[in-house]
Amino acid sequence: MKTVVIGIGLIGGSMAKDLRRSGFATEITGVENLGEHAAEALRLGIADRMAPLGEAVSSADLVIVTTPVDVMLELLPEVLDRISPHATVTDMGSVKRRLTEAVRNHPRRRNYVPAHPMAGTENSGPSAAMEDLFRGKIAIVCDQEMSGPQHLALAEKMFHALGMNIAYMTSDEQDHSTAFVSHLPHAAAYALANAVLAKEERQIIFDLASGGFNSTVRLAKSSCDMWHPIFEQNCDYVVESLNVYIKHLEQFRDAIRDRESCRLADLILNANRIRSVLEGENHQFIKNEETFVKLYTK
Amino acid sequence: MKTVVIGIGLIGGSMAKDLRRSGFATEITGVENLGEHAAEALRLGIADRMAPLGEAVSSADLVIVTTPVDVMLELLPEVLDRISPHATVTDMGSVKRRLTEAVRNHPRRRNYVPAHPMAGTENSGPSAAMEDLFRGKIAIVCDQEMSGPQHLALAEKMFHALGMNIAYMTSDEQDHSTAFVSHLPHAAAYALANAVLAKEERQIIFDLASGGFNSTVRLAKSSCDMWHPIFEQNCDYVVESLNVYIKHLEQFRDAIRDRESCRLADLILNANRIRSVLEGENHQFIKNEETFVKLYTK
Repeated sequence: MKTVVIGIGLIGGSMAKDLRRSGFATEITGVENLGEHAAEALRLGIADRMAPLGEAVSSADLVIVTTPVDVMLELLPEVLDRISPHATVTDMGSVKRRLTEAVRNHPRRRNYVPAHPMAGTENSGPSAAMEDLFRGKIAIVCDQEMSGPQHLALAEKMFHALGMNIAYMTSDEQDHSTAFVSHLPHAAAYALANAVLAKEERQIIFDLASGGFNSTVRLAKSSCDMWHPIFEQNCDYVVESLNVYIKHLEQFRDAIRDRESCRLADLILNANRIRSVLEGENHQFIKNEETFVKLYTK
Repeated sequence: MKTVVIGIGLIGGSMAKDLRRSGFATEITGVENLGEHAAEALRLGIADRMAPLGEAVSSADLVIVTTPVDVMLELLPEVLDRISPHATVTDMGSVKRRLTEAVRNHPRRRNYVPAHPMAGTENSGPSAAMEDLFRGKIAIVCDQEMSGPQHLALAEKMFHALGMNIAYMTSDEQDHSTAFVSHLPHAAAYALANAVLAKEERQIIFDLASGGFNSTVRLAKSSCDMWHPIFEQNCDYVVESLNVYIKHLEQFRDAIRDRESCRLADLILNANRIRSVLEGENHQFIKNEETFVKLYTK
């Protein structure tokens, strides 16, 4: 499988490593705008070669776009213009409505499978790429009826090669759920970092950070290039999620301020339920080595 | 050293394990209100024996109070009433002003060293106790001039036996800094859990949680018994920290909503500074195996 990865960073690089190791990709060509990242990807053996977009894409069996989502908006139509008729295109962007709207009427729309892997770290660039980043995680595939069956099948095979499970949603459902479960935690971490940096000295933050701060604020280290356009493209749902979050913070603050002891306990105990949710109690999801396909019903 | 640990849970149990292992404690007596925890502490070998408060305390060299902070308010005066004149008392509570005020005029006040270790996990009970929980972390010692020198020295020796570094602050400084660096992240996590539980189905949260949600919300699993009285006792500073956080979240939301692209980038890049702060760049703190004592200057 001749595979092209556009944007060789944390996500693209990690995919390249595992797709090669699993035998899914026999030849990996990287397309990378940043010279430094391109050189690093070659040095680390993540890509076999680097090439300009047009040259790389025209002979590919599979093109994976893993750039920031603002760059995707520009690149995806061009990629679809330039692929051969049999090729499959997928992307790993965290926002899906804007992107799928941008190519809704493209003559090669059925070659394209919009996707989003729920995996990552707060680091970026080819040096952050790691094996098994995706294993056991969920890949969201959007609007699957809009993709040709052979292209959908190839994208599914790719995710299975990465050890992922697949969830199917509409672009709109994915953008809403991802706003709450991924974009909101990032916004919350950025704002927490800003609040604490505004009020406490560096020395004190460093010394006291083990009191729970470290894990809560980890995502605030995440790259601006990646996250700035995500917030912009998923504006409506991110603003909605922030409003819901602020409302819950205000409830929590009011219960403390107004010394509503029972109310405060209720809020903490309700939040404690997240333990059983995250541990998958009473969960229909069968965790095993076999990957499988699952449909959300709303 | 005959050591009494009042409250054998995550913190008390972890201290007992390491104090025994290091040779600092030769005999550990547990005092525990919950029968289940008492039995578990004996079964796990965390305590040599369990005893009622009065009996345990009267023959102790060192008494460590690790109960929730509301229980401490009741117990600490009684402990000071009952100790022998040479004994040292310390506590591991996360809030210090209320507690130190409660024993300000106690005739044994100089036997007492108020302290707070910046270490923990989201789990609780003796089964959550673990070795090396405290190694390399900071112990805050408050109002050290109010403690007798021999009692201060013993508490310092105990923290060094745990592998901890020590920071000295007033109770007021500790409550303010801890509000921002520990209590606020817990409140933020509780509210995040509540917001997401209110808006998304369990199944979707479970499946998508690897997108950064897991680490940001981890602290929302923390025990209500422990955290409810912390928020109540540190009410003023926790409310202040929540107000600052909400203000920063509103700024973040407004930048997204109003499509202020440069402003949003500034907020993200400012938050990114937390990486260098947490990694201790340009930091005066000398990290090595030797523990040492350091004074904050404000």
